[in-house]
Amino acid sequence: MAKKGKNGIIHLENSPYILSYAAAVGKKEGEGPFAAYFDCVDMSPSPDGCSWEQEESGLQQKALHTALKKGGFEASDIDILYAGDLLNQSISSTFGLREFGIPFVGLFGACSTMSLSLSMASLAVDSGAAEKAAAVTSSHFCTAERQFRTPVDYGGQRTPSAQWTVCGSGAVIVGKSGKVRICDILLGKITDLGQTDANNMGAAMAPAAADTISRYLDATETEPSDYDMIVTGDLGTVGSQLLHELLIGTGIDISLVHKDCGMMIFDLEKQDVHAGGSGCGCSASMLCGYILRKMEEGELKNVLFCATGALMSTTSSQQGESIPGICHAVHLTA
Amino acid sequence: MAKKGKNGIIHLENSPYILSYAAAVGKKEGEGPFAAYFDCVDMSPSPDGCSWEQEESGLQQKALHTALKKGGFEASDIDILYAGDLLNQSISSTFGLREFGIPFVGLFGACSTMSLSLSMASLAVDSGAAEKAAAVTSSHFCTAERQFRTPVDYGGQRTPSAQWTVCGSGAVIVGKSGKVRICDILLGKITDLGQTDANNMGAAMAPAAADTISRYLDATETEPSDYDMIVTGDLGTVGSQLLHELLIGTGIDISLVHKDCGMMIFDLEKQDVHAGGSGCGCSASMLCGYILRKMEEGELKNVLFCATGALMSTTSSQQGESIPGICHAVHLTA
Repeated sequence: MAKKGKNGIIHLENSPYILSYAAAVGKKEGEGPFAAYFDCVDMSPSPDGCSWEQEESGLQQKALHTALKKGGFEASDIDILYAGDLLNQSISSTFGLREFGIPFVGLFGACSTMSLSLSMASLAVDSGAAEKAAAVTSSHFCTAERQFRTPVDYGGQRTPSAQWTVCGSGAVIVGKSGKVRICDILLGKITDLGQTDANNMGAAMAPAAADTISRYLDATETEPSDYDMIVTGDLGTVGSQLLHELLIGTGIDISLVHKDCGMMIFDLEKQDVHAGGSGCGCSASMLCGYILRKMEEGELKNVLFCATGALMSTTSSQQGESIPGICHAVHLTA
Repeated sequence: MAKKGKNGIIHLENSPYILSYAAAVGKKEGEGPFAAYFDCVDMSPSPDGCSWEQEESGLQQKALHTALKKGGFEASDIDILYAGDLLNQSISSTFGLREFGIPFVGLFGACSTMSLSLSMASLAVDSGAAEKAAAVTSSHFCTAERQFRTPVDYGGQRTPSAQWTVCGSGAVIVGKSGKVRICDILLGKITDLGQTDANNMGAAMAPAAADTISRYLDATETEPSDYDMIVTGDLGTVGSQLLHELLIGTGIDISLVHKDCGMMIFDLEKQDVHAGGSGCGCSASMLCGYILRKMEEGELKNVLFCATGALMSTTSSQQGESIPGICHAVHLTA
């Protein structure tokens, strides 16, 4: 039974656990500082006739197949599959995962999808609706770039605040036993401070992260120092700096425990990604590659995982709208 | 506590109920046979400078505001808001609902979103994660037409199998008491028989509806005649005929109790909508306008609500992909 608490926090009293997880990434991510943690790194060029969108669907397939295999499960063991991605009508997920034949809940949380899908899968298991549930998401540099910005072949100059969409996918299987427990979740509110620069996603998402993290700490009466890591999804260097400033303004200093998946996944000095990595696959592959591994090994015990998303489309930006953000928090303990 | 049953059915043992609901529709829907049942019918031209996307967001705002008002609630009474729509990155929902400040779960289920969001809201209340949860969705003829098909001004000839996207939105508030109870839900699987005609959504979605309805009847050991109405979302005339044929092939005859929101909302003889209405807003406004009203009044007692969605994008169709469908079922009793 879940229990609603202060600020809308949801305490999961039946304690769902992480049963299995896997991360599949592309070439550039496989050359980054966390390469050794990813289950599948694809260094090969795609077969002829395979579109970038199909490649991205393939990343989701690999991540879910591997998570099932590592846990010793079949697709038919999974009761509900929660998934979404950045593409119009979430085609990476629907086309990538249709072959599994699992009851499917499509989500849209932009780059916050890993914490959103993990929240929903945890709630399903906690409530008894599912014995086992899976959460999957992905992103791909070329599919995102051509959909949201400019044709990839055009080779446009990127601004210093721009981030590099990660080619990657993460899959988590949630069930009733394991080493890592999902304790509680806080679903984010749509937060919009009027930022309109589509080349500065970090600034658009930072206010949502600040809102969710401060509401979470308040609801649980905890301090940043109570966590081994408060990890955001893909704020990058610009958004992370803004997050610190916004929180300091409310008397909260997370700088000693804060990490951002967008600043971790690439070598910011050497890999020419400007403000860092981004995309649903960024926090997904860091969670399912590095973070959950370190939790299982006991090196990290208490992690607040806060993936962040920017909820705009090219249409909304062309119509002069600002960029709303959202951040969902999941508290994990080992 | 929810209980997982045969075929993945989820029995909601704490019996969440419909607390309030409202439907907001456009001019054409307000001239159809169910006009009297909609809470808001907008006959006025939009203000200058208002885009069609903003109009669609406005329909969601009206539906949710009205549902809150009818129930005597404030936005702050709602713990979780589940919403989604057809537009790229679900902008009708994110821009329409950001002002409410409710913790937000974005969903993507295409035209199945009303039964998906209602399922998720019901599970949240049943599990204790929320005291009250809301489910909202919408569609708009002009936003859908220009995004998925041709520029509206172009006035292209429509095929006989084409459907007319409904301008409409529905909002439901789920809580712990009321006249209409949500008994159980069955989440759909992605179903794809290889249909590729983007002007024939009914044919793409009918196999998913057949799969979900037959699995539901099997799981509950019930017959079509046990229901006052088995209602699909927007199969239209072509998809409804196919659904009947697919089910007859498995020994199930739903023809006496089957209704399709797409065939109900417009006068198919007089309103020139070809195969019927479609869009998330079609089943949403029929549920929140007509069906729930008739259930509260006692005229309908036992309804299986099965909204259906087609999960393609223009990109997937341009790449030659087929059109996968999905159908989620919600069992309502008065």
